[in-house]
Amino acid sequence: MSRLKGKVVIAQGGGPTAVINQSLVGAVIESRKFPEVTRVWGAAHGVRGILEEKFVDLSEATTHNLELVARTPSSALGSTRDKPDAAYCGKIFEVFKKHDVHYFFYIGGNDSADTVRIVNENAAREGYDLRSIHIPKTIDNDLPVTDHCPGYPSAALFVACAFSGVNADNFSLPGVYIGVVMGRYAGWLTAAAALARKHDDDGPHLIYVPERQFSIDRYLADIDRIYRRHGRCIVALSEGVWATRDTRGRAVPLAADLMRKAGREPQVDAHGHVQLSGGALADELADAVQQSLKIKRVRSDTFGYLQRSYPGVVSNVDAREAREVGEKAAHYACWHNIDGSVVILRVGDYAVRYDLAGLEEIAAKVRYLPDEYINPEGNGVTEAFRSYLQPLLGDAVPYMERLWAPAATLINTAGERR
Amino acid sequence: MSRLKGKVVIAQGGGPTAVINQSLVGAVIESRKFPEVTRVWGAAHGVRGILEEKFVDLSEATTHNLELVARTPSSALGSTRDKPDAAYCGKIFEVFKKHDVHYFFYIGGNDSADTVRIVNENAAREGYDLRSIHIPKTIDNDLPVTDHCPGYPSAALFVACAFSGVNADNFSLPGVYIGVVMGRYAGWLTAAAALARKHDDDGPHLIYVPERQFSIDRYLADIDRIYRRHGRCIVALSEGVWATRDTRGRAVPLAADLMRKAGREPQVDAHGHVQLSGGALADELADAVQQSLKIKRVRSDTFGYLQRSYPGVVSNVDAREAREVGEKAAHYACWHNIDGSVVILRVGDYAVRYDLAGLEEIAAKVRYLPDEYINPEGNGVTEAFRSYLQPLLGDAVPYMERLWAPAATLINTAGERR
Repeated sequence: MSRLKGKVVIAQGGGPTAVINQSLVGAVIESRKFPEVTRVWGAAHGVRGILEEKFVDLSEATTHNLELVARTPSSALGSTRDKPDAAYCGKIFEVFKKHDVHYFFYIGGNDSADTVRIVNENAAREGYDLRSIHIPKTIDNDLPVTDHCPGYPSAALFVACAFSGVNADNFSLPGVYIGVVMGRYAGWLTAAAALARKHDDDGPHLIYVPERQFSIDRYLADIDRIYRRHGRCIVALSEGVWATRDTRGRAVPLAADLMRKAGREPQVDAHGHVQLSGGALADELADAVQQSLKIKRVRSDTFGYLQRSYPGVVSNVDAREAREVGEKAAHYACWHNIDGSVVILRVGDYAVRYDLAGLEEIAAKVRYLPDEYINPEGNGVTEAFRSYLQPLLGDAVPYMERLWAPAATLINTAGERR
Repeated sequence: MSRLKGKVVIAQGGGPTAVINQSLVGAVIESRKFPEVTRVWGAAHGVRGILEEKFVDLSEATTHNLELVARTPSSALGSTRDKPDAAYCGKIFEVFKKHDVHYFFYIGGNDSADTVRIVNENAAREGYDLRSIHIPKTIDNDLPVTDHCPGYPSAALFVACAFSGVNADNFSLPGVYIGVVMGRYAGWLTAAAALARKHDDDGPHLIYVPERQFSIDRYLADIDRIYRRHGRCIVALSEGVWATRDTRGRAVPLAADLMRKAGREPQVDAHGHVQLSGGALADELADAVQQSLKIKRVRSDTFGYLQRSYPGVVSNVDAREAREVGEKAAHYACWHNIDGSVVILRVGDYAVRYDLAGLEEIAAKVRYLPDEYINPEGNGVTEAFRSYLQPLLGDAVPYMERLWAPAATLINTAGERR
């Protein structure tokens, strides 16, 4: 154990989650206990704050402030969509050297893990002692190795609650409802909609994820079948569903297709991701149902940004684990003097332990919904998926009750029953 | 006091709310205590269930089932968008006569109050003893006389929480965000977004309601000004905002304008309301910002159906009051033998008492946001509005904390401060 003397820099990257501040606070409070940690600096807006040397001294944040921040959704330090290349990572490392930073904790998804990996390689090349830990977070749940990603369970709870409410709404005013859920490449969050079901006829009745090619004809046939059976139909669908491939064989998101058809060029971010937000996909899919199936009441929503930082809709399991992966980052770096990405391993049903994976195992990789979680028809999820997700949602899953009362015995004024 | 012997029929109409079942259960449990009430029937899907004689016998629902239903959002009996005319109301009355129904409780908005009024007039004309009580509910909060409508505080809480989360999200990844909130004619629900603000620079920075004519130029100038000041801007906007009038002088919702421009004819429901759901308005308003102000990160959401039946996001004040207006309906009908609409009167700060208004005072009338709740610029709300809404949200308003830490003192390796 080297008991490396120096500063900690911690930052938050990518899209916020409801519990990302738990990880921040876990890492900060735990780091502050180590005498070899001279200061704990927080970088404003992720790696960009490191580059611009915009730091706050979290050694001087009160514990009370930190504890309240932990319970507040979104990234308290600010975030960034910057995806550093080798030169950017080189500059980060220069800033670290300049300020005696010997511990780097970056809370983020697979792109953030990649940044940590490259910065760490810079340090290793120069023989500079830098402990670099990636702390996982993403509502997409698409990191490999870890059983699940902090942030996902709370977003999944939001989606399950939303569909529970939508199902009750649609039960009361029947029709077709289409809810578009975040998820560009992986359907984890959309699949969570299944946890809204309790009764046989509860929605969502159909779930479409980007792991399967989408067909508008099958979609319409599916809805038609459900609507005939139940007089209503609720659909959960990932924003990233795709029906066609481009000339290079890459899936083209249906949302981008629709935007181009409407004469708009979709925006592309620094990571090369096409921007999928906006309501066009939901509107078009609702229109298709109305026009093809002649169903009158068809409604759709795009859940949008509410999914990832809605205050109060937080899984207590998620909050605890997010805190702990933050704490473990400090432990692995300070007690064990090693680099890597903190992962959650499921042991038993349900319990977890934490471990450290190699950065190269996580960086820039995507984990899709495995085949055993998607039904053979490609329009729903399996019991295995429900068993996977259920314990992650904690104890806040709402109980949706229906009225149970006998049909009234109708007797007319002449005393006749019917 | 007549102690009128006969059945109670209770029904739920219009859009569901998070607490409409509290009113149902309050009225049912309270009615069942009166020995002169022979049975308590619930009509399936509002007045339509009366017409079709689809009743459940709530006298035989367990209290436990009812109590769990009370805590479940949306209309447990089912709802309807039917707006009965005189003939329809005549048929309702015939069904009541046929089944010895002498108490009619209808939970709904101003259209439902109108139905109750007409059915009641039918009964009065024929000298048939029918106690008719309208129990208020609407997330729109647009009923006259009552201080506020059950259902509104919980939907307002949902909207305030949504903007709290969105504000934290936007603080972390700055840009322009536009959130479109339900509200066709009245801006009560959109105005609730203001309760998300805590710090001076918190969003929503701009709030547009249908009580003021909307101007895209002023909207863009407003956003430009806020964005220059804070580097970000959050907008809350009612789905019903309008910029133009038709040849008959009626406001044309901007959403309908946009739909027509895109070659789609907006749907019109039985009440003559243009369907406003869908994401086109939010998308267009985001596009306008991007194109005119050249701001890169512009995002928008249409909150849609999540607003009115999201489980778990319920104001405890709202839940209690919704229960009590239901109970009071039974009291006014059974103890006092009178007809009317239950209203909430605010007495003190904050306490309420209940009263009964005449059906004609409520029926088919709309209460808009009063001038003193809208700022002179027409792009925000006043302190008076905040004072009005704050106590209605109950104790579930999330506390959003920011990090408070000093900027790090930067010392380079040569020991120089900067």
